[in-house]
Amino acid sequence: MNDCLFCQIAAKKIPSQIVFEDDQIMAFKDINPVAPVHILVIPKKHIPSLAETSLEDQKLLGLIQVQAARIAAQEGIAESGYRLVANTRGDGGQTVGHLHYHLLGGRPMQWPPG
Amino acid sequence: MNDCLFCQIAAKKIPSQIVFEDDQIMAFKDINPVAPVHILVIPKKHIPSLAETSLEDQKLLGLIQVQAARIAAQEGIAESGYRLVANTRGDGGQTVGHLHYHLLGGRPMQWPPG
Repeated sequence: MNDCLFCQIAAKKIPSQIVFEDDQIMAFKDINPVAPVHILVIPKKHIPSLAETSLEDQKLLGLIQVQAARIAAQEGIAESGYRLVANTRGDGGQTVGHLHYHLLGGRPMQWPPG
Repeated sequence: MNDCLFCQIAAKKIPSQIVFEDDQIMAFKDINPVAPVHILVIPKKHIPSLAETSLEDQKLLGLIQVQAARIAAQEGIAESGYRLVANTRGDGGQTVGHLHYHLLGGRPMQWPPG
């Protein structure tokens, strides 16, 4: 996985603006933000996308959801609200082949979501 | 929770086009689709939004992620790709106060996601 951008960010071989980290998860600011708050929440483990997940990943994926909500609170957008988005493969608009959830807030998000 | 629309759908007091169901989760077609495939995946348990989740919900939330990917495969969009979206409160664009994930595919999803 040495050529995976997000594996390298998780390993801190590539710097990022980290907003949260534990042994399983890292969250950092998106370098091309599309909202005042735009954070990526990723598993440190390399999972290409949701399409490659199985029940083995259930707890890790659940932890990402709970932690995203905690990060939203930490960033001051829990009350105003936020959108959590995971893109899978081409039609999903996935641009990095390592599972990541976009946490977006600080402005009203529009509908449809892309 | 008798006045919650999605609790009533989960209890089948209000009909929906169900695409998946187990003891913890229900998935049904959105009545206002914004993509060829637009399915809502919800916990049967009443959780208002991600902002009200805790580690107690970790496994349930993880199961929703894994199951959403399985439903995408069932709907024929696993290869082409899809977007999974959870809206929380006002800025997130949440319109029903029962946690739900939008599974969207069957067309290229645009960026930004709303």
